[in-house]
Amino acid sequence: MSIDKLIECIKEKENPTVAGLDPKLDYIPSFIIKETFDKYGKNLKGAAEAIWTFNKELIDRLCDIVPAIKPQSAYYEMYGWEGVRVLEQTISYAKAKGLYVIADVKRNDIGSTAEAYAKAYLGETKIEDEIFQRAFDADSATVNAYLGIDGIEPFIKEGKGIFVLVKTSNPSSGQVQDIIADGEPIYEKMAKLVDDWGKGNVGKYGYSNVGAVVGATYPVQLKKLRKIMPKAYFLVPGYGAQGGKAEDVAKAFNQDGLGAIINASRSIMCAYKNTGANEEDFAKAARQEAINMRDEIRRHIQ
Amino acid sequence: MSIDKLIECIKEKENPTVAGLDPKLDYIPSFIIKETFDKYGKNLKGAAEAIWTFNKELIDRLCDIVPAIKPQSAYYEMYGWEGVRVLEQTISYAKAKGLYVIADVKRNDIGSTAEAYAKAYLGETKIEDEIFQRAFDADSATVNAYLGIDGIEPFIKEGKGIFVLVKTSNPSSGQVQDIIADGEPIYEKMAKLVDDWGKGNVGKYGYSNVGAVVGATYPVQLKKLRKIMPKAYFLVPGYGAQGGKAEDVAKAFNQDGLGAIINASRSIMCAYKNTGANEEDFAKAARQEAINMRDEIRRHIQ
Repeated sequence: MSIDKLIECIKEKENPTVAGLDPKLDYIPSFIIKETFDKYGKNLKGAAEAIWTFNKELIDRLCDIVPAIKPQSAYYEMYGWEGVRVLEQTISYAKAKGLYVIADVKRNDIGSTAEAYAKAYLGETKIEDEIFQRAFDADSATVNAYLGIDGIEPFIKEGKGIFVLVKTSNPSSGQVQDIIADGEPIYEKMAKLVDDWGKGNVGKYGYSNVGAVVGATYPVQLKKLRKIMPKAYFLVPGYGAQGGKAEDVAKAFNQDGLGAIINASRSIMCAYKNTGANEEDFAKAARQEAINMRDEIRRHIQ
Repeated sequence: MSIDKLIECIKEKENPTVAGLDPKLDYIPSFIIKETFDKYGKNLKGAAEAIWTFNKELIDRLCDIVPAIKPQSAYYEMYGWEGVRVLEQTISYAKAKGLYVIADVKRNDIGSTAEAYAKAYLGETKIEDEIFQRAFDADSATVNAYLGIDGIEPFIKEGKGIFVLVKTSNPSSGQVQDIIADGEPIYEKMAKLVDDWGKGNVGKYGYSNVGAVVGATYPVQLKKLRKIMPKAYFLVPGYGAQGGKAEDVAKAFNQDGLGAIINASRSIMCAYKNTGANEEDFAKAARQEAINMRDEIRRHIQ
């Protein structure tokens, strides 16, 4: 079970956090940019290679601290297929280092198309009879369930993990998610679907392969949602740069100390900027920030 | 205005349909598969090259009949970054042939990330001061608005077209979209948002850059939605293989004969299978099917 693998990674590192790898060029130290631009040119390939260098060093310095990474696909796609190639390399490299990989792709479509996405990110692509290849091969993916179960089932069938968008961290998340129907908001209805879809996919720690994305920026809703989806693992964005605090995200955990993994992206990737460290020490600064975050969150869930 | 470009392409070809390019390997004639596998190997690269050969020939034979193509990103992503490379090539090749390109990506995320997706598919990616490159460079993209305006605005800002998922064509679309709130279903609430977001983005034909995805498989809803979003262009999937009929999709059009573009994917790509034509004539069969579809739909909207 994919969820068991995630929980075991979390237990091993005693750290319920995930490092988001959303590598905008602005976040990458200029000495890396210069080196790769000199070698590959000031173009999408040069940019993608800079991301690869940045990611690889971050993974090397974070892999004994964090249990998981979460690359955000948009920041690779914006550099074209060269960027997507680096997304694939990043996933593969992180897994080789023992990290659990959440592909933050928020994919969604009708059944037959969702099947293609599920194969792309979690499964195998058929090339010819008995010949299969893995395209991106993550451990889990984020998905959007506006289309209902048709678009979710193919992901569940792969036997890996998914995190369904329930209550997102952004300011306008309420525009659709907070609409009240039968006395309850849409995000609670979505939460009930997630709880339902997770039945029959529960691993040995009592958690389901069908998780939920719930933003740290809405702590009141987080607390309520924890009750509606007791078996769902929560992927919690919005900590740090977006304003979510440790006492807020503490509400995402169950009594067993499990049930949630807290994401931070910018605060880790850009730690060298925020602490005034030398550019050359970017990975060291990221490591220290990941340690601080781990300790801060552990303090709040004990 | 992107929507004006789409309408002009439709007027020029007198054809309100779009050919979906969802190139599963199963759809591709075996002589193409054999050729590319012999040259590149039975792997993701070989598969991607087969798709490229297939797409190129389809575009050559369809470009004077259809105004637009709609590649479905999932069927490229499932072949890894090599597949995504072919997606980029396909978009570029189709645009060079004068076709309007709808990137069917259904992307969605918080504002900063949606901005990265918008740059990837509709805009320019900044490499360095004053150096920008285009990653995928489509004319429009499909998007999912479960996160509200934050995730939509960056796409609108690019000045290109978007099609927001309102009522999708799949069987379980009602699970979330048909939930009733204040006496109306969520898809109608979404339609009102689309109508609102489109204000200020209306082109010379009276249509907005903010369009809607409405499935041909729900004709009653289609008719109602036409009234709620008078200025939105409808991208209508579900015609043909999914069961939508010409009399159903006719409801997507306004009195001016404009307002909708009807998609067919499998029925065009696999026309050679359905008609029993020789594999070698796949593009000819696709062309004939595109002509038949054009004529059938035109008959129903006049």
